[in-house]
Amino acid sequence: MSERVPSPVDLRIDARWVIPVEPAGVLAGHTLIVDAGRIVALVPADEADRRYAPRSRVALPRHALIPGLVNAHTHTAMALLRGIADDVSLRTWLEQHIWPREGRFLAEDFVHDGTLLGAAEMLRGGTTCCNDMYFYTDAAARAYEQAGMRAMLGMPVLDFPTSYAADAEAYLQRGLEARDAWKHSPRLSFALAPHAPYTVGDASWARVVTYARQLDLTIQTHIGETQHEVDEARATTGESPLARLDRLGATGPGFIAIHAVHVDPEDIELLAAQGCHVVHCPASNMKLASGVAPVASFLARNVNVALGTDGAASNNRLDVFSEMRLASLLAKVTTGDASALPAARVLRMATLGGAAALGLDQQVGSLETGKQADVVAVRLADVETIPMYDPLSHLVHAAGRELVTDVWVSGTRVLDDRRLVGIDVPALASRTQAWQQRLA
Amino acid sequence: MSERVPSPVDLRIDARWVIPVEPAGVLAGHTLIVDAGRIVALVPADEADRRYAPRSRVALPRHALIPGLVNAHTHTAMALLRGIADDVSLRTWLEQHIWPREGRFLAEDFVHDGTLLGAAEMLRGGTTCCNDMYFYTDAAARAYEQAGMRAMLGMPVLDFPTSYAADAEAYLQRGLEARDAWKHSPRLSFALAPHAPYTVGDASWARVVTYARQLDLTIQTHIGETQHEVDEARATTGESPLARLDRLGATGPGFIAIHAVHVDPEDIELLAAQGCHVVHCPASNMKLASGVAPVASFLARNVNVALGTDGAASNNRLDVFSEMRLASLLAKVTTGDASALPAARVLRMATLGGAAALGLDQQVGSLETGKQADVVAVRLADVETIPMYDPLSHLVHAAGRELVTDVWVSGTRVLDDRRLVGIDVPALASRTQAWQQRLA
Repeated sequence: MSERVPSPVDLRIDARWVIPVEPAGVLAGHTLIVDAGRIVALVPADEADRRYAPRSRVALPRHALIPGLVNAHTHTAMALLRGIADDVSLRTWLEQHIWPREGRFLAEDFVHDGTLLGAAEMLRGGTTCCNDMYFYTDAAARAYEQAGMRAMLGMPVLDFPTSYAADAEAYLQRGLEARDAWKHSPRLSFALAPHAPYTVGDASWARVVTYARQLDLTIQTHIGETQHEVDEARATTGESPLARLDRLGATGPGFIAIHAVHVDPEDIELLAAQGCHVVHCPASNMKLASGVAPVASFLARNVNVALGTDGAASNNRLDVFSEMRLASLLAKVTTGDASALPAARVLRMATLGGAAALGLDQQVGSLETGKQADVVAVRLADVETIPMYDPLSHLVHAAGRELVTDVWVSGTRVLDDRRLVGIDVPALASRTQAWQQRLA
Repeated sequence: MSERVPSPVDLRIDARWVIPVEPAGVLAGHTLIVDAGRIVALVPADEADRRYAPRSRVALPRHALIPGLVNAHTHTAMALLRGIADDVSLRTWLEQHIWPREGRFLAEDFVHDGTLLGAAEMLRGGTTCCNDMYFYTDAAARAYEQAGMRAMLGMPVLDFPTSYAADAEAYLQRGLEARDAWKHSPRLSFALAPHAPYTVGDASWARVVTYARQLDLTIQTHIGETQHEVDEARATTGESPLARLDRLGATGPGFIAIHAVHVDPEDIELLAAQGCHVVHCPASNMKLASGVAPVASFLARNVNVALGTDGAASNNRLDVFSEMRLASLLAKVTTGDASALPAARVLRMATLGGAAALGLDQQVGSLETGKQADVVAVRLADVETIPMYDPLSHLVHAAGRELVTDVWVSGTRVLDDRRLVGIDVPALASRTQAWQQRLA
């Protein structure tokens, strides 16, 4: 018998429980092996002993290891507006609080600093990848690079001018320039992000669709967030906003419908038939009194559903743990079925579901061999999470983001025992303080 | 001019913000003075310098000081069943998971250990007082004494036997014996806790009402948790469960209606007319798919509403911070009004509202002079809670229980920089582990 020589690898992580998401279930006594940023094995510890010679080892005897969470919809830089106006109607919130401040302060430095703040919060909460929709894409890209976080950057498109661009074509050009500048960054990807059916006219949607087809880009847009916008669209065009976008050629497996609260059965059929993705944002939809997305109906039609926080100004947390619990609780109470959206299902939404929506499910979303090592350790050992009958249940129903201790993105540790590795937090806090004084 | 000599006092706490709840608002630059367990002043720092000579001082320059939170409904010892059965229907949950285990394991040591675990969790989360409804009242009292936590103990009454008692009179006698044994404990109070209208018959309710009047005791009961129980009651008696209890003389300002999800307009009028209190348990009502209590309607009729977690087996957190946020989000989405249940209102519910429900609002629930010093410090300084435009908003919409650093009950520090002072946590964890092995 030949004895294999142990292979040198970068990293070995031994955790009490490993929840790879794919395949489903909880593994005990297993070891994750990482090399060159990728997962090379998830095997019993004794097998790891024989096969691998790790250059570094991390022992997490009281922790669950899960795939990095994916925040499939946010406006990261709006972290600088967290808590600036709460408990007011959507219209008051937008017209009196958010838009005037964005009108006055929106610029490169606002987006860079706000994105870095949001990225810091997300990484500390186990979110390794987000889908960001905001302005100054290049400034946001710089912040994600600095934080060491994975992101899909939505290149915004609007039919009205901001400090960022004058018209739809200018928005597209600025976005594509940023994409070109960052095309070699392995953690960044780009999508087309027309804001919404009601803020982008047919001509601009046609441009977006053309670019999407030519450049093989995902399209993401807010859709059916409020009843009002759907009613208004129907009154104007006689069709639902989604039906209009379908007619314009925007739908398909590269289409992300954000919110999708106010959708009718035909819309759901359309989403299913076209293979579109939905991003469910429970906290934001509740806080702005928008409504509750019919998640059970999406799932019943096999529409992929991901989870998003929306921006910190309407949440006010960039916290996918919190969205997981809310999604499960909301699904139960709105369907009257306490077995709706069980813990394993909602964790899958928050990981592989998000990755699939972003077109990244071959790279991330589960702890499978060959994927990027986006990995999160969650400590499940203190009075809040004992006794322990089922780690999956605790992750969704009892744990919170504060139990995340360590985070790796492509095998690089970005959170080390709750300390952010790549971000100068005191400097970030001081810049945030300066923004607070200007924005207040 | 006479110069006053500074008075010696036990404790001075200087915090960045103080939110006394009564009066409403946020104070900056204020100092809380505590002596002999009570709040003796809440004054500007320079006034505190002149007037008080504290024996100890605590500086909290990045924290908000709030009244201890009140968890107005829980089954604390069920912490030992946290996560044992989730994502199943209420009926399956009770009949296949909870009741069989309670039937087999319910005993003094189960209740003591479970109550200590739940108390540890609550104190670490800023909850200084709870309203507990469970069995083995004496064992629970021992655990709260050890933890240094304030509690109202509901003396259970049922018409069917458990290991604790054989019939309603026996339940009452055991409860009253525990009350007698602990009557000198300043932090413990007692209430009558008939389980529910559907588990306690008219004769037993009549006994409960008699004891309540003779001994001036609050009555608390689960009511209208599910549509099923209300439908069944109406089919049997032709009246709502609450109308029946009113006919039996149970309602009044010393009556706590727990859940109150399925109540009709007449029930709400009755609660208002009788001065009853409601305990809203949003997470449990969502998780068990029970429904959503009409909180806005209660408030519109000036019915006092408190917040409760219910037991950890149906939540699965004993976390009033989480209930505050959920209550606000649920109120907004169910009324369609984003201004419903604003942060200040929901914090008041979780403090003074809870204290009023328990009949303790002269003792606790706000940081007012003369009240017991039940005080909680919440650190609002890290990336999750900056920038800071409004501490009240952050407490409800952005903060979590993990930001609680220090807790005092009657001026005694029970949590010191997140470390529980009176509880041997490793021993508690080890007993919890032993229970886990027996219960699994």
